[in-house]
Amino acid sequence: MTQRLCLIGVGLIGGSIARAARQRGLVGHINAWGRPDDEANLHQAVALGVIDSYTLDIAQAVDQADLVIIATPVGAFADVFVRLRPVWRETTCYSDVGSTKGNVVSVLQQVFGKVPGNFVPAHPIAGAEQSGVGAARDGLFENRKLVVTPLPETCPQTLSLVRQFWTALGAEVSEMSVAEHDAILAATSHLPHLLAFALVDLLDSKPERTQIYQLAASGFKDFTRIAGSDPVMWRDICLANRDQILPLLGDLQQQLSHMSDLLRQADGSQLVDLFARAQAGQQHFQDIFHSRSTS
Amino acid sequence: MTQRLCLIGVGLIGGSIARAARQRGLVGHINAWGRPDDEANLHQAVALGVIDSYTLDIAQAVDQADLVIIATPVGAFADVFVRLRPVWRETTCYSDVGSTKGNVVSVLQQVFGKVPGNFVPAHPIAGAEQSGVGAARDGLFENRKLVVTPLPETCPQTLSLVRQFWTALGAEVSEMSVAEHDAILAATSHLPHLLAFALVDLLDSKPERTQIYQLAASGFKDFTRIAGSDPVMWRDICLANRDQILPLLGDLQQQLSHMSDLLRQADGSQLVDLFARAQAGQQHFQDIFHSRSTS
Repeated sequence: MTQRLCLIGVGLIGGSIARAARQRGLVGHINAWGRPDDEANLHQAVALGVIDSYTLDIAQAVDQADLVIIATPVGAFADVFVRLRPVWRETTCYSDVGSTKGNVVSVLQQVFGKVPGNFVPAHPIAGAEQSGVGAARDGLFENRKLVVTPLPETCPQTLSLVRQFWTALGAEVSEMSVAEHDAILAATSHLPHLLAFALVDLLDSKPERTQIYQLAASGFKDFTRIAGSDPVMWRDICLANRDQILPLLGDLQQQLSHMSDLLRQADGSQLVDLFARAQAGQQHFQDIFHSRSTS
Repeated sequence: MTQRLCLIGVGLIGGSIARAARQRGLVGHINAWGRPDDEANLHQAVALGVIDSYTLDIAQAVDQADLVIIATPVGAFADVFVRLRPVWRETTCYSDVGSTKGNVVSVLQQVFGKVPGNFVPAHPIAGAEQSGVGAARDGLFENRKLVVTPLPETCPQTLSLVRQFWTALGAEVSEMSVAEHDAILAATSHLPHLLAFALVDLLDSKPERTQIYQLAASGFKDFTRIAGSDPVMWRDICLANRDQILPLLGDLQQQLSHMSDLLRQADGSQLVDLFARAQAGQQHFQDIFHSRSTS
């Protein structure tokens, strides 16, 4: 059990960590820190009983904490680490929940000159379009993947504590390199979000957009759901992981040019082959997804 | 009430028409036609009680029918109309359920030299990834949109009968031109399907595809659901409506190039503006969709 948990940022993810940790009896006291412009949200988090206390003084926030989890948007990490550096303790475990890991490592290297051994980069693969502590849920991480991306310099005890903490929250913990994580997340999450944003922005600019929305059915609804995600959070993620996203987006642009050629040439045979490969791939994914959610 | 309904093709849509019409007491007798290679399916449709009878002889199938609905894949329409022409009756009403309407009109013009006045092009905006009569449901069209795209030569009585039939099946009937229908469906359905097929085919070709599928979460699942759709049906639709799809796909390719530039230039300000426009558009669509499904 972690006696004292400190959350740097209490939004959907931070709030859900607090709720799950409390519900499962994993923590004694939950303290949080935020910037002055976040105070209303922190106040709400206390009022909802999600956290026990908050402070705008980061030294006070992390004082005596056993585990500090950085759960701000990825774009705020540099600022947070600059603030944490003067009060960093060797005896505290640190982790984060950022959707991209390469940028966390490079920000740490910039701020500390190295990645501290008692920091474990982590990413819970869970979320929703909703944001803020009001959307936080006890069970957000149950049976969800949590990826840790330790470095050679990561301290084994800290890694072990972070793994145990997330396992106790109900997540299925797996380990991979920073580069693997970022490449895979570019494919499973970042590129699909970019495509959904691109399509909706395009259609929304058409004069016939009202008719489009009126005739769109459930396929369109599901396909565009992720375009409802928070713009600032996704700007941060896309910029943080652009080295992985750009080549993949290039591959997709090539694929679309190829499909465009097939349509123009009315090459039904190649089109049906491509669609059938995609259908088989989607079925393969569904099988894996379904076996995960029922396991 | 339509005394005798004849279905040309009994898959998901044809079967669901039969089930809904029966459940709502709209028809006396439901007969169906299919090609010899479709006989097992037709047999199943009778065994399930979805239709009363079937025949492989098209003259016999449409004999005495009050309403004939063509519910084969779009790619089979030319063949079906060639077979129907010698047995076409002025006293029968004809309609279809094809996802594209321009190609139905041009096939009719090729086969008949004109669009017969007693044919009403129609499209129920309902479906699923499943196909075949086994997936047919009583309520597939309830509160769903049904678009009719009458031509100047369409006979008002036939149009009225088709509109009444679909209203009685629970659909919300609206009317627009063939060109409007095809442009809007390219945006709401055909382009999203192409994008989902393109993305899954691309990722499925990657060496890390298993890790991709293992880490993909519910956003990916919803985004790629439509990639599970029938490849032959979608080949037909994409070829039938390529004149509308190609320019829209071109617009999207431009949009992706633009996003790629913004990422390369790390232009966070323009990225967040684009994502925010998309988020607002998605919210606008959700509001319309939600008010439709609760009305």
